[in-house]
Amino acid sequence: MTREIPYKIYLEENEMPKQWYNVRADMKNKPAPILNPGTGQPVSLEDIMPVFCEELAKQELDETTPYIDIPEEIRDFYKMYRPSPLVRAYCLEKALDTPAKIYYKFEGNNTSGSHKLNSAIAQAYYAKKQGLKGVTTETGAGQWGTALSMACAYFDLDCQVYMVKCSYEQKPFRREVMRTYGAAVTPSPSMNTNIGKKINADFPGTTGSLGCAISEAVEAAVSQEGYRYVLGSVLSQVLLHQTVIGLETKTAMDKYGIKPDIIIGCAGGGSNLGGLISPFVGEKLRGEADYRIIAVEPASCPSLTRGKYAYDFCDTGRVTPLAKMYTLGSNFMPSASHAGGLRYHGMSSIVSQLYADGLIEATSVEQTAVFEAGTMFARTEGILPAPESNHAVRVAIDEALKCKETGEEKTIVFGLTGTGYFDMVAYQKYNDGEMVDYIPSDEDIAKSLAELPNLES
Amino acid sequence: MTREIPYKIYLEENEMPKQWYNVRADMKNKPAPILNPGTGQPVSLEDIMPVFCEELAKQELDETTPYIDIPEEIRDFYKMYRPSPLVRAYCLEKALDTPAKIYYKFEGNNTSGSHKLNSAIAQAYYAKKQGLKGVTTETGAGQWGTALSMACAYFDLDCQVYMVKCSYEQKPFRREVMRTYGAAVTPSPSMNTNIGKKINADFPGTTGSLGCAISEAVEAAVSQEGYRYVLGSVLSQVLLHQTVIGLETKTAMDKYGIKPDIIIGCAGGGSNLGGLISPFVGEKLRGEADYRIIAVEPASCPSLTRGKYAYDFCDTGRVTPLAKMYTLGSNFMPSASHAGGLRYHGMSSIVSQLYADGLIEATSVEQTAVFEAGTMFARTEGILPAPESNHAVRVAIDEALKCKETGEEKTIVFGLTGTGYFDMVAYQKYNDGEMVDYIPSDEDIAKSLAELPNLES
Repeated sequence: MTREIPYKIYLEENEMPKQWYNVRADMKNKPAPILNPGTGQPVSLEDIMPVFCEELAKQELDETTPYIDIPEEIRDFYKMYRPSPLVRAYCLEKALDTPAKIYYKFEGNNTSGSHKLNSAIAQAYYAKKQGLKGVTTETGAGQWGTALSMACAYFDLDCQVYMVKCSYEQKPFRREVMRTYGAAVTPSPSMNTNIGKKINADFPGTTGSLGCAISEAVEAAVSQEGYRYVLGSVLSQVLLHQTVIGLETKTAMDKYGIKPDIIIGCAGGGSNLGGLISPFVGEKLRGEADYRIIAVEPASCPSLTRGKYAYDFCDTGRVTPLAKMYTLGSNFMPSASHAGGLRYHGMSSIVSQLYADGLIEATSVEQTAVFEAGTMFARTEGILPAPESNHAVRVAIDEALKCKETGEEKTIVFGLTGTGYFDMVAYQKYNDGEMVDYIPSDEDIAKSLAELPNLES
Repeated sequence: MTREIPYKIYLEENEMPKQWYNVRADMKNKPAPILNPGTGQPVSLEDIMPVFCEELAKQELDETTPYIDIPEEIRDFYKMYRPSPLVRAYCLEKALDTPAKIYYKFEGNNTSGSHKLNSAIAQAYYAKKQGLKGVTTETGAGQWGTALSMACAYFDLDCQVYMVKCSYEQKPFRREVMRTYGAAVTPSPSMNTNIGKKINADFPGTTGSLGCAISEAVEAAVSQEGYRYVLGSVLSQVLLHQTVIGLETKTAMDKYGIKPDIIIGCAGGGSNLGGLISPFVGEKLRGEADYRIIAVEPASCPSLTRGKYAYDFCDTGRVTPLAKMYTLGSNFMPSASHAGGLRYHGMSSIVSQLYADGLIEATSVEQTAVFEAGTMFARTEGILPAPESNHAVRVAIDEALKCKETGEEKTIVFGLTGTGYFDMVAYQKYNDGEMVDYIPSDEDIAKSLAELPNLES
C-alpha cells in the first residue's frame, strides 16, 4: 500500500488500540521477579495489594497475558487527546539535508504536556473501579503530578501529591496546574506524615528529595482508609499502559507501508521508551522483523551505559521492594541537570532485561548537545520539546547526519514525549550560554554501586 | 450524510483550505476606510507601504476579492500544526447534563499556544518574498511575539520584538521561548529608538505600555533598511488570515452533516472571532443560512457593548492611521485583568461593521465567572484554556445551560483560541480566591470617549 504520506498521520478512532500489549509474554528471558527486601523472596499479590490498586498489582505481576483489554472508560478518555500524531519531519530533514526519512510520535498535545497521561488515566480508573476515595503520589518536576491530577479530576477521585519542596517553590506554575485540576499539593518533606516530621526534625530547612516524597506518599496511602499509592514510571504496569504509544505508531506506519530502520527514545525510568518499542520488540522476539532500537540517556545519569545489572531498591529511602535493573545504586545522586524526568538511578526491569539480552542498544548524550538539537528542532518543526525529549531528538539528528554521509535512506522514528513550556529556565540557561555538562566520575558511580543490597541470587 | 461523530474531527490534508475568505467582498456595507490622521482622507497603498509589506498592504485595502490564494509555502507550514481539531465536548455536555451539542475549534496545539501563528506565518512569508531582512513588532502578554518568532525562524528572517517592560520582567518564560526561536527581544521603552529614549527621559523607571511598544516597533521598522512593521490583530489582513479557522470549521461540520445554531468567540482586537465566523457570516450575507453569532468581551474592556462606533486611533500614542470601529477611546486604560489579549480599546473594523449591521451579537462577562468556566472546562475536557478563551467557554456553557432549561438540542460551536500554560499566575489568583472583577464606570468610559479625534465624516 503506498499513499502519499501526510505531514501528520492521525489514526481514525476505530483504528486506535483496544488492548495494551504486554511484551513480557513474548520474552523468553522474563524480567527478574520483584523481591521482598525482608525475606529476599518474590513478592506475592497479597504483599503489594495494600500499596497498589488490585488490578494494577495483577498487571504488575502478569508475565504471560500478551494482550490486556483497555477498558472502555479509558478508551473514551484516550479519545479526548489521542490518537497522537505520527509526524513526518519534512522540515528537519530539509534543514539537515539528509536522505533519511524522520518521523516522530508526538505525545505532548495534552495539558499534562507529556505521555504521562496514558498511564495516569489507567491508574485512576482502576482506583475508582475498586471504590477507593483517592490516590497519593510524589512528583519532582511535575509532569506526572499534573497528569495524575487531570485523571483524578475526570474520575472524581481525591488526588494528594507530595511535591519535592524545592520544585514546589521553584515551579509554582506546575503546582497551579495541579491545583486547577483539584489536587492537594503538599511540599515535601511536610508535617503530614511521620517520615516527613522526622526528616524535618533531622534536617531543618531541607528542600526535600524525590526519595523523601516517595516515602511520604506511600505512608499517606497506607495510613488513610480507601487510598492507594500510584507511580508514574519504572513499574511494568506503567510500561504496559504506555504501549498505546507504540501500538498507534505501528498501526500508522503499517497503514502507509512505512518500515522503520531505527527506533529511538529517551530513557529515564524506561516507561515511555518501553511503551514506544514494545510492539517492535515483540516482532523481534517472535522473529518476524528486525529493527535497531536505541535508548538514549543523559550522560549525567547513565544507568544503562555505566550502571550494573543487579537487584536494588527503587527509592533512595530504601523502603520499596527490590527490582533487578540496570542501576547506578539507589544512593546515586545525579548532578543537577535540566532533564528532571531522566534523573533516576535505575531502569525499568523490562527495558533492563531487553538490554541485557542485546535486543536494544543504549547511548548517553550531554545536555548542551541535547539542547542544541532541541533548539534546532523547535526552529524547524515548530514544536518546543521537553528537555527529556531533546535526548531522543539529538540521537535522531545524529543518525540522520550519518545517513547524509553514507547516502543511506534510512527510516528513523523517535518518541517526542512532551513539550518544554514549563522548562524555560533550562532553555534560558542554554540561550545565555550558561549551560554546562555534568558527567559523573567512575569513582562516584563505583561508590554508590558499592552500597547495593547484598543478596544471594 | 450522517456518520458517527468522533471526539475530534481532523480534516485530511487535501481538505484543508487553499484560499482565505475575504468577507468584505460579501458585505453590502463595507467597513469604513482607514483615514490618514493628517489629511482626514482615506489612506492609499502608497501611504502605508513604508510601514507594511507590499502584499499585506494590498490585502488590507482589498474589499472586493472574495477568495485569496494561500501561497503553497504557507500551506506547507500550516500542515505542521493544522488542521486544528474540531472537538465534540462530550464530557462537558455530560457534566452540564445538557441536551445541547457543544463543539470547539481548538487552536492551541502549537508552540505559540494560540491562533496567532495563522497570521504570523503569512506575514513572515510576504516579508521574505519581498526580500526584506526582517520585521519588527510589539508584544504584551507574549502570544503574538512567540508566534512571529516561530514564523521568522522558519523563513530565516530577523525578528525584533519590543516587549512591554513589565511583561518582559514578569513573564521571563515567554521571553525565553521567543529567544529560543532566535528573536531579539527588547524591553520597551528601550534606548534603541528616539521615542524610547524620550519616554525613558520623561518617565524615569517606567515599565512601559503597549502604546509605547507599538511606537518603538514602528520607528524601528521605518528607520532600518529592509524592515517592515507587523501586527497581530485588529487589521483586516490579520482577520483574513484567521479565516483558515472558520473555513476548516465549516468544512468539518459539513463533512459530518452538522449545522451550528450558535457560534461563539472571544473578542479582543477581533481577528480570531472574525476568522472563525467569516464563512458563516458570508452565508448570512448571501441569504444562504442563518446563525446566532456571539462576540464575547471582558466586562473590564467592553468596546462593543459599551463603546462608541467612531473613528479613532489604533494606538494610545496616536501615531497610527484612524479606523472606524467600536472604541472605548484610545486613551482608555482597562483595569488590570488576566485576559491580556482582550485588553484593547477598539475592535476590528470588519467586526465593528458586522455588529453595527446586526449580523452578530455581543456580550460581556466578568473574569471570576470566566475562570470558573475555564476551570470546569479543564477538569472535564482536559485542556487548560487561555484566559482569553475562557470568555468563549463561559458563554458556551451559559447557552448550553439555557438548553437544559428549555430542553432544546441546540448545536453550539465556539473558538478555543489557546492554552493557558503561561498564564498560571491568573489561575493561581483564581485558585486562591483572590481574583476580583473590574468594571469601568460610565464616567471613565465617557471621559476617554470625550477625547476621540474630531472628524467631519
